[in-house]
Amino acid sequence: MREPGILRGVAAATLDRSELRGRVGAALEGFLAQRTNELAAISAELEPVAGAIRDFVLDGGKRLRPAFGYWGWRGAGGRSPDDDAVVTAVAALELVHAGALIHDDVMDSSATRRGAPSVHERFAAAHRAGALTGSPSGFGQATAILLGDLALVWADEMFAGSGLDPRAISRARPAYDAMRTEVMAGQYLDVLAQVQPPVSAERALQVARYKSAKYTVERPLHVGGLLHGCPQALLETYTAYGIPVGEAFQLRDDLLGVFGDPSVTGKPAGDDLREGKQTALVALTLEHGDDGDAEAIRSLLGDSLLDAAGVTRLREAIEHSGARRRVEELIARRLDEGVAALATGQVEPVTVEVLTELATMATARHS
Amino acid sequence: MREPGILRGVAAATLDRSELRGRVGAALEGFLAQRTNELAAISAELEPVAGAIRDFVLDGGKRLRPAFGYWGWRGAGGRSPDDDAVVTAVAALELVHAGALIHDDVMDSSATRRGAPSVHERFAAAHRAGALTGSPSGFGQATAILLGDLALVWADEMFAGSGLDPRAISRARPAYDAMRTEVMAGQYLDVLAQVQPPVSAERALQVARYKSAKYTVERPLHVGGLLHGCPQALLETYTAYGIPVGEAFQLRDDLLGVFGDPSVTGKPAGDDLREGKQTALVALTLEHGDDGDAEAIRSLLGDSLLDAAGVTRLREAIEHSGARRRVEELIARRLDEGVAALATGQVEPVTVEVLTELATMATARHS
Repeated sequence: MREPGILRGVAAATLDRSELRGRVGAALEGFLAQRTNELAAISAELEPVAGAIRDFVLDGGKRLRPAFGYWGWRGAGGRSPDDDAVVTAVAALELVHAGALIHDDVMDSSATRRGAPSVHERFAAAHRAGALTGSPSGFGQATAILLGDLALVWADEMFAGSGLDPRAISRARPAYDAMRTEVMAGQYLDVLAQVQPPVSAERALQVARYKSAKYTVERPLHVGGLLHGCPQALLETYTAYGIPVGEAFQLRDDLLGVFGDPSVTGKPAGDDLREGKQTALVALTLEHGDDGDAEAIRSLLGDSLLDAAGVTRLREAIEHSGARRRVEELIARRLDEGVAALATGQVEPVTVEVLTELATMATARHS
Repeated sequence: MREPGILRGVAAATLDRSELRGRVGAALEGFLAQRTNELAAISAELEPVAGAIRDFVLDGGKRLRPAFGYWGWRGAGGRSPDDDAVVTAVAALELVHAGALIHDDVMDSSATRRGAPSVHERFAAAHRAGALTGSPSGFGQATAILLGDLALVWADEMFAGSGLDPRAISRARPAYDAMRTEVMAGQYLDVLAQVQPPVSAERALQVARYKSAKYTVERPLHVGGLLHGCPQALLETYTAYGIPVGEAFQLRDDLLGVFGDPSVTGKPAGDDLREGKQTALVALTLEHGDDGDAEAIRSLLGDSLLDAAGVTRLREAIEHSGARRRVEELIARRLDEGVAALATGQVEPVTVEVLTELATMATARHS
């Protein structure tokens, strides 16, 4: 049973968190309003570009990376309320993510994102509606590549121009740069894994480490810690928390991609199965399932026309092989390991509560 | 006839320039060697990623943007030989350009670049050679999107980490940021123009201003000037030189895309005609040509299977309409206008010679 003092800490932290989400949104809105004006000054024809980035960034997203960035700063001893520039700097991580997702959807030919048409689909639809010349999908793709590029370079502009002392930005830049290289590397390893099936669970977890754990949790915490200035030991604690917790996020995402409710995931049911994603969940089904389970994976996974019966058959194989249970166990173990790593006394106490809560929330079955 | 003194200035400038090219290449090589090691530490499977970016960046390119960046710095009073960090900072512009070109080739489905397979073709070929699963072109495209992203974020890392005082970097950042937003905006306006033919010459020149003139000449000069620290009046002189000269570059490029020798352009003869590029050259053919010229454009431009006879027919129409001559006149007028703008006494004299030479060289018929 928890101490009342700790309960108050949690309540305060929860309050802080929802307030933070609003502040990150406001920082993004202000920054994007300036960029929209800049584009409008070039040509009125650029309004759809600005509009699509604004909608993508402001209409959705859990703001997880800015949250880890902000709490990395608080955990190192940063104090509100003088933290507007910090909120702006970490909000930039959301623009990095927007660029990565817009490009990811082009790479995967995903038609939807967060329950709405993906950016390339949005522009393909505008091309069709305007009865323009040439290929709607080619126009959508070209535009989405440019919009993703813009989001990436704007992220950088927002981070460097946050209003923080240039020395603080310089201190955090190695973590910011590593984060960007690692997510691209992880994405490439993922693309490569998809064309070399079947992959081992070990390899799937390596991909998860780079494209999710380091990118979503560890590096944002490092960025925040370094923006404030912090000892190497704190960065190591952030790593000991961030890697297992981030892997748990990806494993939960793998489960949601197969068993998730479309109203929660914003993607059609079984979408990962149609795409043929080579996840740890699939690898464990092949490694531990019987011949029938393996046969289901081999014959149905990656079938872009997979119907509801096919989705059910694959879910049964994953369940029957014990892979679903194993992945739940991996998530629980990593969550425990990550949270335990915070108990070194280095991390400021309210931050420990918030990071514990963030980890629990983002790995929960219905997150 | 030129004064001997000025001739010596030109010789010195020419020497400087070829030496600069080597130094920019060396800075890029050193930076990319570090990034290659970072990727290798993640996974040996990332070697092809590092290799493709190295080959793309180190095997070609005129290094025009670093040259304008460097001479922008010299023109503001910067002095060699203490300029290694400046060379590194402006070499980063070549990585921005690499990212833009890698993505441009995906957007245009161009099979070649600088006489070699484009990045997406290179990875599609590796997919076929390895008999991997799934679509070779899909794999090539996804990889090229990621590699272009990496080049863009590495550019930023190289620029910020050049070794210059963070205050100098902060001073130059508005120009660096504007350059990146403007090239993406120009690219979008170009993509949009291609799906809304026919475009007016005025609109084609607007696209050229953003995707070429500001991006290639004006903004690199501003970046260099601001790295050193310079008055607003010098930035305005750089603009008065950079915009017309940069437009002249694009107009020369339009001519080369139609009449150029493949051994010079690195692209098949008439490639722009097959792609259906809506250039000022095409617009002027429609605006001033007779019915036959217009009919040739309407029926043949953008035909991806256009044969040698079709290319000849289009060349004749462009010639016959007077558009080729008009574009040559526009180039000559802009070159004169840009070079004349340097005669304000603000720009350091050797730099005036070099910028005159760069403008002449890059707009020459056989560049």
